This record gives sequence, C-alpha cells and structure tokens, in this order.
Amino acid sequence: MNRKQLIAVINKKKTFLCVGLDTDLTKIPTFLLEKDDPIFEFNKAIVDATLPFALAYKPNLAFYESQGWKGLLSLEKTVQYIRQKSNDVFLIADAKRGDIGNTSTQYAKSFFGQEDNRLNYDAVTVAPYMGEDSVKPFLEFKDNWVVLLALTSNKGADNFQRLPIGNKQLFEQVLETSKQWADEKQMMYVVGATQADMLSQVRNIVPDNFLLIPGVGAQGGSLEAVVKYGLNNDCGLIVNSSRGIIYADNTKDFADRAAQEAEKIQKQMALYL
Amino acid sequence: MNRKQLIAVINKKKTFLCVGLDTDLTKIPTFLLEKDDPIFEFNKAIVDATLPFALAYKPNLAFYESQGWKGLLSLEKTVQYIRQKSNDVFLIADAKRGDIGNTSTQYAKSFFGQEDNRLNYDAVTVAPYMGEDSVKPFLEFKDNWVVLLALTSNKGADNFQRLPIGNKQLFEQVLETSKQWADEKQMMYVVGATQADMLSQVRNIVPDNFLLIPGVGAQGGSLEAVVKYGLNNDCGLIVNSSRGIIYADNTKDFADRAAQEAEKIQKQMALYL
Repeated sequence: MNRKQLIAVINKKKTFLCVGLDTDLTKIPTFLLEKDDPIFEFNKAIVDATLPFALAYKPNLAFYESQGWKGLLSLEKTVQYIRQKSNDVFLIADAKRGDIGNTSTQYAKSFFGQEDNRLNYDAVTVAPYMGEDSVKPFLEFKDNWVVLLALTSNKGADNFQRLPIGNKQLFEQVLETSKQWADEKQMMYVVGATQADMLSQVRNIVPDNFLLIPGVGAQGGSLEAVVKYGLNNDCGLIVNSSRGIIYADNTKDFADRAAQEAEKIQKQMALYL
Repeated sequence: MNRKQLIAVINKKKTFLCVGLDTDLTKIPTFLLEKDDPIFEFNKAIVDATLPFALAYKPNLAFYESQGWKGLLSLEKTVQYIRQKSNDVFLIADAKRGDIGNTSTQYAKSFFGQEDNRLNYDAVTVAPYMGEDSVKPFLEFKDNWVVLLALTSNKGADNFQRLPIGNKQLFEQVLETSKQWADEKQMMYVVGATQADMLSQVRNIVPDNFLLIPGVGAQGGSLEAVVKYGLNNDCGLIVNSSRGIIYADNTKDFADRAAQEAEKIQKQMALYL
C-alpha cells in the first residue's frame, strides 16, 4: 500500500487505528486452547471483529517466535487471512530488525516481496543503531515501508535515545540522518505516545512522515495529546493499541469486547479527521 | 554454559572460533537442494566437519526467517543436532533483538529456557537502542548471556555508534551504561573486527567481558590485530567467521574445505592461547 492509498483508506474508513496482535497463549481465552491452532483462531476472531474500525494490524514477532516454528506458521496463516479478507489493511511486522547489509537483505525478504501471501507485509519496524547500510536493504523494496525506531515508549528510551549529541538528542539525530535515506513515501518513524510532549520536536524535523505511535492505552499514552502535537495535513499518524483492545475480555465475548474498544477509539479518531 | 565452563572449553579445544551459520539456499552446493531439508543437511555437514576446531556456532536468524516457518524448523533441527552431538559448544542466536519489557520477555523465551532442545541457546545478540528495560528480560535467565551490540563491523556504524556524547562516542557510552546492568558472567559485547584499532578503547571500559568479534575474513578484519588489542587473561574473545568457512567451496567437498579453513584459523588461535 503506497502513501496515496494509505491516506485514501484513512479517509474512507475514518480511522488511523492500528490493532497490535501481541497474541500470548497465557492471555487469550482458555476455551481457545482446545483448538488446533489457538493463536490463529484468536487472531482471526479479533480481525473479524475489529476490521471495520482498524486501518492497520501489527503483529509483534516476539509473541510468535516464542512458540517456535509453529508460532511462525500461526502468523503466516494470520497474514494470509487478513490479505484475503480485505485490500484496505496496512500490515506492519513489528520486528525491530537490523543487521549488516547482506543480512538485512535476508530480513527484508522475510517480510516483503514473497510471491504468495505468507509473509507479505506493507511495513517493518527497524532499529537504527547499525546505521544506513542496515536500513537500506529494506528500502530496496519500493512498494514497502520502513518504520524506523526514533523515540520509544519505554523507560529505557532515556538511556541512549535522549542523550545529547551537540545541541540535539540522539533520537533527533536519528531523524535528521535517516530522512536522507528515504522520503515520506517510504519512511515512517516510531514515536512513543508516552512522550507526546516531544512530538512537536519530532514534527519540526519530519513534518510530512507518518508516525507510528505505540503506547496508547496500556502503556499510558493519551490520544488527545498525540493528535494535538502529531497530526499533519495527511493525518500522518498510525496509532497502535494492543492489550487494551485484544485483551479487553477473556470470556467467549472477547471478540465483541475488542470490537467495542476499537470502535470507541475509531469514533474519537473520526472527530479529529 | 557459564563463564568458567566457557574458559575451560577454550583451553581444552585451544580455540575461540565461532562458525557463523548464515545458511543461504542460493549459496550452498546445488546437489543439496534435492534433499528434503537442504538447510539442515548443509548445517549438519558443516557442524560435523568443523566441530573439532570450533568453540561456538552462531546462526543468524535472518537466513532462516527468510524461508518462513520451514526455515525456523530447519534451525530448530540444527540446534537440536548440535546439542545432541556435543556438550562443549557455545551456541549464539544472532538475532539483534530488543523491544519493550514484556515483549523482550517473549524474545528471551524464544531463545532461552525451552524445556526441550528446540531453541536452547547459550546467548543472544541484543540491540541497545531501547535501553535497560529492553535488555533486562534476557538477563533474567541466569544461565544465559546477552551479547550487546556496541561497535559493529559495517560502514553504517559511523552514522550513530561513533557520534560524540560529551567526550565519549555513543558506543563507549553504551558500554559504560550497560556494564551496570550485568557483570562479565552474563554480558558480552559485539565489537567489529574491522574496527580493531578501537578495541583498546573498548578494553579500557570493559577489561573482563568476552567480546564477540564478527567480521574476520569476508568482512576484512585481521585475527592478529584482534588478538593484539582484545585478548585478556581469560582469552575474552570469541571470533566469528561465516562465509570464509561455510562457503569456502560449493562442490561435494564443501564440508572438507570448511574443515580446512576452520582448522587453519584454529591453529593460529592455539598459538595465541
């Protein structure tokens, strides 16, 4: 999905909500554990219920890898299912990858450009620490996006991301440098919602790029503050909620309750668009 | 494998060589492609041939993920095979992971503490950008190691890792800060061999920690320089070679040629120990 299509979907569905598929066998309703593939069954039900309210889905790879190859198979089935169900979904692999050039090329192949729909994402999150040649291989896939970590929503963001480099902080330098590598048609940034006051600093450097904002809900960020400092003329925001939606309930009603939570956020978002 | 055991194996086998299992279907001998699981068959042959000369094996996850769940299955079989074959192998998942706390816990479960041997590594490489709470969940596994990226061997290392933070460079600050999180019994660092002149700076900050040195061979680093600046009283080095060993030949003799290359390096290493 390119930038024009992404903006069109936002305006059509009146939402910039991303549902985080952080599917954890210890947190899903226990009756699902009797199924052959509980992770896939859970994801399928969540997608069916929340699709009217969601722009994007974002599985975090950690939750699938921790189940070994079977977890990866559940994820491939999920991606396939979403792709079959709708063309209007932006699909983000939250993987935070990054390695030397020839290895990043392998990672890029893992997420982009598969001939079938097994692992056919629109975007992947990438860590910036290893620099340009660790990011570029992902950008070779011209129909796909890199979502580069800039300022994350966790406490550890203070350890390095906010260190002073001259009169800037490291995350600002990451923005300044990396915006030379690709324009707003291929590059997005992760900016934690718990750092909403710093969004205006981010917007000074990257006014046009889409920002992926995790941390609304369970991690404590406020949608209002994110919109106030982050919204641009093309929306420019993809706001993620994971636990607050997918684990709103753990009875047989879990999917309905997930839909309610997603709709609540979507209604708020519609007002801002 | 704890630090004491690791040092014992180094002294017993007279080697600190790590063989990088960056197994790429487009580079392995073509006759293997007829087998049911070419990746596993290749790895098995490489391990059988190089085991007398190797301290460690380091599969890079990217090469397996790019094959989808089947690649992960080949990797699990490889790990199982190595574990059954020898107790004297240090096994590193080169994954460069790191995420917010509860997600890093999932990654830690992916690599450590599995009840069977499916994914039972000694160590995992971790990216530092997200800070302390992204690294700590790995350190909860007291029998396992974090290998934190400090200074990598690629050109992009200059983009951020070498930026000045006061009178230090970022990679030095990463060393200073992270050595508070765990001692030399659980923390190692990645330091690129192409940066051998900077190894003495690294040793000033972390004299006792083991360093994982990629980039000897194909990436252009020299073993002599690495030993000169990096060796400490407990050896303190694990030096990786991937392509130079595993792709030394792509005929039916590939395993023998890999053994020869590994032995050549091991013989040099024995002189330094």
